Amino acid sequence: MSDLLIRNCDVLNVTIDARAFVLFDHDILISGNRIEAVQPTGQADPSHFRQVIDGRGQVAMPGLINTHAHTPMVLFRGLAEDVPVHVWFNEYIWPLENNLIEEDVYWGMQLGLAEMIRGGVTSVADHYFHMDGAAKAVEKAGSRALLGWCVFGSNGQEMIERSGRFVQEWQGAANGRIRTLMAPHAPYTCDDDYLRAVVKKAKELGVGIHIHAAEEMFQTENSLSSRGKTPIQVLEEVGVLDGMTIIAHGNGVIPQDYPILTRHQVGIAHCVKGYLKMAAGTTPLLDFRQHQIPIGLGSDGAVSNNTLDIFEVMRLMPMAQKNHHHNAEVMPIAEVLYIATRDSARVYGQPDDLGNLDPGSLADIILVDMTQPHTQPLHSIPATLVYNTRASDVQTVIIDGQVVMKNHELLTLDEGEIISYAVEHKARLAHRDTNKRIQTYAP
Amino acid sequence: MSDLLIRNCDVLNVTIDARAFVLFDHDILISGNRIEAVQPTGQADPSHFRQVIDGRGQVAMPGLINTHAHTPMVLFRGLAEDVPVHVWFNEYIWPLENNLIEEDVYWGMQLGLAEMIRGGVTSVADHYFHMDGAAKAVEKAGSRALLGWCVFGSNGQEMIERSGRFVQEWQGAANGRIRTLMAPHAPYTCDDDYLRAVVKKAKELGVGIHIHAAEEMFQTENSLSSRGKTPIQVLEEVGVLDGMTIIAHGNGVIPQDYPILTRHQVGIAHCVKGYLKMAAGTTPLLDFRQHQIPIGLGSDGAVSNNTLDIFEVMRLMPMAQKNHHHNAEVMPIAEVLYIATRDSARVYGQPDDLGNLDPGSLADIILVDMTQPHTQPLHSIPATLVYNTRASDVQTVIIDGQVVMKNHELLTLDEGEIISYAVEHKARLAHRDTNKRIQTYAP
Repeated sequence: MSDLLIRNCDVLNVTIDARAFVLFDHDILISGNRIEAVQPTGQADPSHFRQVIDGRGQVAMPGLINTHAHTPMVLFRGLAEDVPVHVWFNEYIWPLENNLIEEDVYWGMQLGLAEMIRGGVTSVADHYFHMDGAAKAVEKAGSRALLGWCVFGSNGQEMIERSGRFVQEWQGAANGRIRTLMAPHAPYTCDDDYLRAVVKKAKELGVGIHIHAAEEMFQTENSLSSRGKTPIQVLEEVGVLDGMTIIAHGNGVIPQDYPILTRHQVGIAHCVKGYLKMAAGTTPLLDFRQHQIPIGLGSDGAVSNNTLDIFEVMRLMPMAQKNHHHNAEVMPIAEVLYIATRDSARVYGQPDDLGNLDPGSLADIILVDMTQPHTQPLHSIPATLVYNTRASDVQTVIIDGQVVMKNHELLTLDEGEIISYAVEHKARLAHRDTNKRIQTYAP
Repeated sequence: MSDLLIRNCDVLNVTIDARAFVLFDHDILISGNRIEAVQPTGQADPSHFRQVIDGRGQVAMPGLINTHAHTPMVLFRGLAEDVPVHVWFNEYIWPLENNLIEEDVYWGMQLGLAEMIRGGVTSVADHYFHMDGAAKAVEKAGSRALLGWCVFGSNGQEMIERSGRFVQEWQGAANGRIRTLMAPHAPYTCDDDYLRAVVKKAKELGVGIHIHAAEEMFQTENSLSSRGKTPIQVLEEVGVLDGMTIIAHGNGVIPQDYPILTRHQVGIAHCVKGYLKMAAGTTPLLDFRQHQIPIGLGSDGAVSNNTLDIFEVMRLMPMAQKNHHHNAEVMPIAEVLYIATRDSARVYGQPDDLGNLDPGSLADIILVDMTQPHTQPLHSIPATLVYNTRASDVQTVIIDGQVVMKNHELLTLDEGEIISYAVEHKARLAHRDTNKRIQTYAP
């Protein structure tokens, strides 16, 4: 008796060398939390499975991985629009984040996880505050998460210890769905000694580091002019890149950084919607690809990106690259799907288990409805997934072998209750005293 | 007894000077095909209306206007990806369009209209072939459309006459929902004499002209070097701009064209998704705004844009502009909403009747669900409409006073039957003989 059979769907297969093809009319067999087999429909007997899902008209693909988010920021979305980055930080975000308590993070995380599950995102690398609240929400949602408690240099050693205790408490929790890491904010808010102390703690705990760096070119220029090193060089020197590392954004990465990133196999989380909105410049993704630097898709927080919609990011990435390079041929569809699946799993630190539907991998699978007018007729499933599919086309979501959304119905979270919390606390959360901020942006 | 009452919704109000605000808890009263009043909930007695729609949790806004589409091309979507424009035309689109018969246009138009109604698009300016089929589909769908039968210079006077007969037959049909115009393809596929002949016919019939021009900068450069005039100057000289005119794209419009466009109040249809995908350059929209040149949102055909999703175009437009100008402050949310509503109605040629919810205007209204996790909490309705809203959030659609979609159920079209046609004819439509094409792209 196996656990779960998904019958008669079309299965997206993305190869390690970034080709994409479709296995039509296939079944996916799941045993426990892993994929047992992907095989033509007709071979498996449905009566041998505890649960059977009819996949007709749907495409099965690996659950999407959000490699950089501040999920609970959904509570602030829409509050900071059409402003440059220093105003965004100093007059909006960092004053607003004064309002946060752990309960907000717990409910805000649930709200964002509900949005993400509905949109086919099964894993999220989250970087925020009061992370016990976030972990409890992940446990409840049934999602997979890689959680780090954000620390600033001004927080001192005490917060390094606190976030280290978070790592110890939650690493491997929820049947291994929760993993943790250290999360210093950025080289411009943590000095070298502080970063070294974070690295020491990460090595002691055997976990990686998730950090913002070289977010925009002027950060790199400032770093070069003030200290003669790029932010990436700084990170290498202080040891941040020694273990598994996620660097958020990297729009200010320059060619001299490439060998460093390649050598350490540092993953770059790419959150293009916010870059476009905030005019943060174009990430050198074609160079990253050429230098075998892993790229993962990310939503960033919902105050810059507004949504946690990875299908949208998947679509925007090639459009921004084609436009920037004046070349419609760059970053073709198969490469986009590779970045969205296997490469994002590399950035997330689980390339063997996630981002693919190979037998033996973890059963994080989404079923995407392809029967609606906006995807018909279906001349090309890969093209449709990249350029037509909406988050709302995700019909069923399986994480770690468990069905967490079935036919658009969320099975783990109470959306009414979650939204009630958000509505009830809206005014308190929107309060803003620009003289009180958790940090000052002056990179 | 009035006809329709929409109760207790939040109403988006966009002013003529491009400010956006929301009237909370309002009713919309509709009499016949026009808006009678917009007033606070509580004043109108529901029992005095033939039909009442509960608008709680929803935002009412003017139906979206797609100012440039080749709707039936949905039948080919996904067949031409990651290729430059000359390959796209010569090896894909123009060979594929050899396959088209009027029946395809009838069903393809229905398929696209189904997608558009579902996504809140109530009016479309369509430019294609076999337009009797398109008009019949519009009549059936209950949509509003401005239809033009595409002609090339190589088609000769005969097709000018044919498309003129189409204008005569359909102008004002379906209670005025259908309007028509002449639709010469472009100055690079119609020589000056041919354009003059089209203008003569348009004037004779008292209709406008919908044409592609200055689509990319190299078209303008080629025109300047071969004949010393920009495509816009050519259009002015031959008389195309004398009446109501829609110009599709205009990425190659240069400053010397601005006074011409301003003087004639020529509308520019902006289809940014395709420009990004096909690396067609950035439209000088900030200059257009400064010169009071009307801008309308458009989807173009679904082989370049993949979808007919005007919410997506609405979001991409400011993102592309902010990115291009390295300035997060340009094209703020209220201006985006102005372009999507009142300015698109100017381009469409019905600024007094469409693109607003003013009393006396035509009752083309969409209700957008704001209760889902990806739009909560609702700190800013304008921001949410631009940066969070998906086509699938549109819950109810009213066109010309008629409810054509209610709670996501399409009332006028049979989607099963439409998709069956598309699936059945998929292989025939995808057949491609690159030696047989309807035109050759060599602008």
